Amino acid sequence: MSKLERYASLLVEVGLNVQEGQRVYISASVDALPLVRLVTEKAYRKGAKDVKVNLKDDHLTQLHAHHKSTEEYAKVPQWTIDERMFYSDEKAAFLSITSSSPELLKGVDPDKLKSMQVAYGNAFKEYSNRIQSDHHSWCVAGYPSAGWAKLVFPEKTEDEAVDALLDLIFYTMRVDREDPVEAWQELDATLHEKVDILNENHFHALRYSGPGTDFTIELPEKHLWAGASSENSDGMRFMANMPTEEVFTAPKKTGVNGYVSNTLPLSYGGNIIDGFKLTFKDGKVVEYEAEQGEDVLKNLLETDEGAKYLGEVALVPDDSPISNTGTLFFNTLFDENASCHIALGSAYGFSIDGGKDMSREELAEEGLNDSITHVDFMIGSAELDIYGIDPEGNETLIFKQGNWAI
Amino acid sequence: MSKLERYASLLVEVGLNVQEGQRVYISASVDALPLVRLVTEKAYRKGAKDVKVNLKDDHLTQLHAHHKSTEEYAKVPQWTIDERMFYSDEKAAFLSITSSSPELLKGVDPDKLKSMQVAYGNAFKEYSNRIQSDHHSWCVAGYPSAGWAKLVFPEKTEDEAVDALLDLIFYTMRVDREDPVEAWQELDATLHEKVDILNENHFHALRYSGPGTDFTIELPEKHLWAGASSENSDGMRFMANMPTEEVFTAPKKTGVNGYVSNTLPLSYGGNIIDGFKLTFKDGKVVEYEAEQGEDVLKNLLETDEGAKYLGEVALVPDDSPISNTGTLFFNTLFDENASCHIALGSAYGFSIDGGKDMSREELAEEGLNDSITHVDFMIGSAELDIYGIDPEGNETLIFKQGNWAI
Repeated sequence: MSKLERYASLLVEVGLNVQEGQRVYISASVDALPLVRLVTEKAYRKGAKDVKVNLKDDHLTQLHAHHKSTEEYAKVPQWTIDERMFYSDEKAAFLSITSSSPELLKGVDPDKLKSMQVAYGNAFKEYSNRIQSDHHSWCVAGYPSAGWAKLVFPEKTEDEAVDALLDLIFYTMRVDREDPVEAWQELDATLHEKVDILNENHFHALRYSGPGTDFTIELPEKHLWAGASSENSDGMRFMANMPTEEVFTAPKKTGVNGYVSNTLPLSYGGNIIDGFKLTFKDGKVVEYEAEQGEDVLKNLLETDEGAKYLGEVALVPDDSPISNTGTLFFNTLFDENASCHIALGSAYGFSIDGGKDMSREELAEEGLNDSITHVDFMIGSAELDIYGIDPEGNETLIFKQGNWAI
Repeated sequence: MSKLERYASLLVEVGLNVQEGQRVYISASVDALPLVRLVTEKAYRKGAKDVKVNLKDDHLTQLHAHHKSTEEYAKVPQWTIDERMFYSDEKAAFLSITSSSPELLKGVDPDKLKSMQVAYGNAFKEYSNRIQSDHHSWCVAGYPSAGWAKLVFPEKTEDEAVDALLDLIFYTMRVDREDPVEAWQELDATLHEKVDILNENHFHALRYSGPGTDFTIELPEKHLWAGASSENSDGMRFMANMPTEEVFTAPKKTGVNGYVSNTLPLSYGGNIIDGFKLTFKDGKVVEYEAEQGEDVLKNLLETDEGAKYLGEVALVPDDSPISNTGTLFFNTLFDENASCHIALGSAYGFSIDGGKDMSREELAEEGLNDSITHVDFMIGSAELDIYGIDPEGNETLIFKQGNWAI
């Protein structure tokens, strides 16, 4: 079996864990077709009764963004919502393959982009709620487009860059291990060990200290740490992100104070934001600045009220497979698994004990943030220390110079 | 401007005749993306407010056909109908690019294919009615996929075959003329001249005589011949087929008698039917046989009651640009414009004087056939004579040995 076939198998077996008679919904751009075709075939062979592929083309995406009026660009056709909700109601397994250039929409009017993002965020809010409570299985994975690959390897030709990035993705996916499925089982066990330790400690808060970063994140009383594989509402396991190296939970919405600086660039909505610093007071971003993409950051923060609060706090050791490639991916799926990160926007329902069955209102009462957006950004480095704080104020070092200390 | 750009311009300017503020709806497979991207950009530059591209992938189409159950395969999601009807209601300009291999669905259970075709035919009947009465502008054009090109040029490599077929398409599209738009205006004038002569003659019937063919087609009292450019319900010109070399009208549903043999293979629903002969009595196919694809032909004829009757009769000289390439395209858009042809299934409303504004019931009263399908097949050759018959039974030779005699 080729590496690409092994990759496709991993997505079907471990990522989606496709069941007999299930529907599968794949979102991808045409650049990912070599992978999408294999996943589709393997999903059918595993018994899927219907594999729907929602195909986009990056070049057309750019043309639409540049030429449509803001009004047209922000229209969300009802039938696109109907389609998604049909597959959601049927508890399809959702695979999203990220491949676009991190700068795909560079040069597009930021206000036009914001209008579109807000419109789509609102239109697909119910779908996002279901994803964030693991109602059905879902998986995000990556495949290189030429545009993305050239940003990672600017000195290579397009074809060389794509090959090199694909090789890196294979590495992070553990595709080249003798038994990739077993490798993922081991990873799953390792991350769940960390999850168990953190849940046993039941910290009241986390304190971050590093260059450009000094802040404290309170955790909700009923917070739960999670990592690697998840369980959907039918009790089926799936892997929401591939690769994944993180363990994470939700912050208490109003319990974040201090300032934090990003350590890796953030690609958001087809634009890069970098060199930025956020200052929080009682959970809310009250000051921000960025060396690059400040207008994009501004629009992100203004998406809705919840976009100014945090919805996720994730721990990733600096000494991890992705981090050790020494590669900057300019893609959150990969970069967030090379670095401690936090997310602006909505929290995952399962980050609260019993939260999978709570409404967004009930989750809010437990201290979780709600928003139509959820955007991770990287704050980890080899100079970052993180302390767990118990209710009495005693501190335990959890991360020392970027790596696990417990 | 490259030839491909000139082709794209022709589709936008002459085929769709895109208007300021109009919507455009493109159906294509990913093989045609080089053309689709250019058409999209040019349509936006001409003022389109929204260019929707419905992208398919032939490889995925095959996987769905082979792996889905008949029940799943024949399901037509309501949202796909909603999408199409939205663009139809908005009088979008519809472009369909044909590129798939003529044998794309070879080996798929013919009954499964029939179920799907019947389901889609019924679901999109209102849309077809609108197309067949020129409610909005529409255009069908071609772009080579590797699968299609290899069938036309089996001795060439894939890349060579695609290039060769694309060159042929450029030739049939008059892209290499000094002024392609002017060339299309000339063609339009030439075909409308023939249309005028035929309409003035107002024949009662046509009699076909050639090898394997001896039959008579009565024409409805109010029949109108048409060819080349059409006019939509807003009075905008468009070119429904590019290329086009035909003039055509509708037969009287119950007035076809005798037998006819095909002269070029027919690719229908991803399968080839060849060496076939149909015998008609009072308009209806009462006998049929085929050397290749007889089961596919059977299912085509059994699509619905109207599929056993004719809906179009078209005249194309044997000495025409496409015919003179000496190439068998295995694609109706091209082969039908190299040969006289007739179509099983629904008739075009505009083939009757005043028919654009008639309901299907009113059209039926005027003698026009109705069906959820419309499939052209080629019956012309250099040995075919066609006579026009007046109400008194006097015969005028219109086609002599495959070419215009009037």
